[in-house]
Amino acid sequence: MRLAIDVMGGDQGPHAIIAGSAKAAVEHPGLQLTLFGPRQRIIAEISRLPQPLAAAASRLVPCDAPDSITPSTSAAWALRNGHSTSMVHMLRSVAQGEAAAGVSAGNTAALVALARRELGMIEGISRPAISTAIPARQGRRCYLLDLGANVDSPAHRLVDFALMGAAMAQCIDGTVMPRVALLNVGAEATKGSASVREADRLLREYASTSHGAFDYQGYAEGGDLFKGQFDVVVCDGFVGNAVLKASEGLTSMLVERVQMAFESRLSGRLASLLAKPVLKRLKKELDPVRYNGASLLGLRGIVVKSHGSTHADGFYYAIQRALQEVEHNLPARIAGRWQASGSDLNGAS
Amino acid sequence: MRLAIDVMGGDQGPHAIIAGSAKAAVEHPGLQLTLFGPRQRIIAEISRLPQPLAAAASRLVPCDAPDSITPSTSAAWALRNGHSTSMVHMLRSVAQGEAAAGVSAGNTAALVALARRELGMIEGISRPAISTAIPARQGRRCYLLDLGANVDSPAHRLVDFALMGAAMAQCIDGTVMPRVALLNVGAEATKGSASVREADRLLREYASTSHGAFDYQGYAEGGDLFKGQFDVVVCDGFVGNAVLKASEGLTSMLVERVQMAFESRLSGRLASLLAKPVLKRLKKELDPVRYNGASLLGLRGIVVKSHGSTHADGFYYAIQRALQEVEHNLPARIAGRWQASGSDLNGAS
Repeated sequence: MRLAIDVMGGDQGPHAIIAGSAKAAVEHPGLQLTLFGPRQRIIAEISRLPQPLAAAASRLVPCDAPDSITPSTSAAWALRNGHSTSMVHMLRSVAQGEAAAGVSAGNTAALVALARRELGMIEGISRPAISTAIPARQGRRCYLLDLGANVDSPAHRLVDFALMGAAMAQCIDGTVMPRVALLNVGAEATKGSASVREADRLLREYASTSHGAFDYQGYAEGGDLFKGQFDVVVCDGFVGNAVLKASEGLTSMLVERVQMAFESRLSGRLASLLAKPVLKRLKKELDPVRYNGASLLGLRGIVVKSHGSTHADGFYYAIQRALQEVEHNLPARIAGRWQASGSDLNGAS
Repeated sequence: MRLAIDVMGGDQGPHAIIAGSAKAAVEHPGLQLTLFGPRQRIIAEISRLPQPLAAAASRLVPCDAPDSITPSTSAAWALRNGHSTSMVHMLRSVAQGEAAAGVSAGNTAALVALARRELGMIEGISRPAISTAIPARQGRRCYLLDLGANVDSPAHRLVDFALMGAAMAQCIDGTVMPRVALLNVGAEATKGSASVREADRLLREYASTSHGAFDYQGYAEGGDLFKGQFDVVVCDGFVGNAVLKASEGLTSMLVERVQMAFESRLSGRLASLLAKPVLKRLKKELDPVRYNGASLLGLRGIVVKSHGSTHADGFYYAIQRALQEVEHNLPARIAGRWQASGSDLNGAS
């Protein structure tokens, strides 16, 4: 199996991305990773890999792409001028079937726009959505989407998100009948924006006519995300992005405060022994994008976005996520779901 | 000074609200609280107050309002049929100048709609906004608005939120030049919904023409809310509601997890001694609406919404917030800000 890796665009530079790639290669002996970026720089980074990572060096194959897309590059600029960038080369490798999936820690807006052009969309879906699983109570997790690829989403796009999220939960977590909810400001039918109320109507009609796709549970509120009672929560990308980033910011502040509070009450050594391991694990668990990446859904291929500020471990987990999606052939599952439900949805809308 | 209290509508019933009111009365010897609700029930609750709360019983004045608005009542129903409810009686008491401010733990949508009708809006503002201060790094706090009174907010309404939030930070926290930001999916000018980009343009124009109102800092992302670098962050009510409720849910899950993690590593007794006080304080600090209530801004009077599931302490803090707003005459400050900036804003829009 071969994956395509964009080594540029992460805040930590190619070093972290190549180390994360090497870690994945060490763990999966059948895996080969094509690394797109400035060839000399990649070769230099590979040659500096410590053991045991260096053992996988022969399965990290540099592929020259002289340019890169920066965090401030606009999607429009990337579409016009990105031809020789590592991100476009990586996506083309997926589009041409040379790689089973692609992973990038670069600019999200550019990645969404370029992936849409290079890979194309599954029939019936107009734009990619971004999703990740957030941790919930009772060891459960909840796929939240969209996380920022779509703003001002009309009702039919929210319905698309529901179908894609349900396919994701079925595929990756093996949830037979995912419980899907629509994020709103309250549980009452009279509340919410026009597009959310219309999406609720479409999803209710869809749920009443189709069989076996998912279990539509109506509205959820922001606090319900972490309760473990839904497998998928659907919202416009502006809302999902704000919620996810606020959650990351809050987790980081909370963990810092708990740490300070313990350090002020315990001796430094005792605090380190007792509190730090607990807090470190929690932080990791509760910052899903930084640690596990996010999936671009709706494309005719698999693309995983690793967090921009990711370190080697985060990039390694993003590769793991890409491998899971390859194993379950997620795009085919989503396309199948679309064909099966197309007539119901057309009937409903 | 007299405040008007709606004793109905909280999840914990009138008991918690009357106990919270009594606590405020004990603390402020010049304060009288008119309690609106079923008279016999109020009298019975007052007679059961323990010491030292019972000492303030004479300053808790029952005022009969036989009906109440339930959490599931729609705003439309409340406007049509709410005349004899405790919420409407409380608001009329504020509108008629009998009380300096009103506090309710009831249905938010009904409270917003009824307050708008009974108190009227400050000239130039079309709808109330809901705001609370969320805790941020370095002991700072950040006013977030709107929290759910307005969905699908057009650009000019987001500008209204900025002015009201700035007045709030100046008034309550004494921040001379509040740093105001607009929530978006990214810091780049090309990102975001049409209304957010238009509001950014209006706020930039406003900032360049007006003097001394606030310091407009451009876009913020969800994670910036807790960093302490902004005094006010403005967003549509759908987004603010989702972010705030998700933050509440996450805090509660996080605190639970930290607690479990410590209990599994320490003996129960040691965990109780070390971890519980720290976590309890954190939970309180990080759940601002439950503990401090939220303000309805833009009205010609002061109305504070206490959290529906509040206990006596939470209601007590909501009363404290109302008293602060009375002390600084917040509606007059907002109205003054509007008059001062009206010409600039008209010029900008």
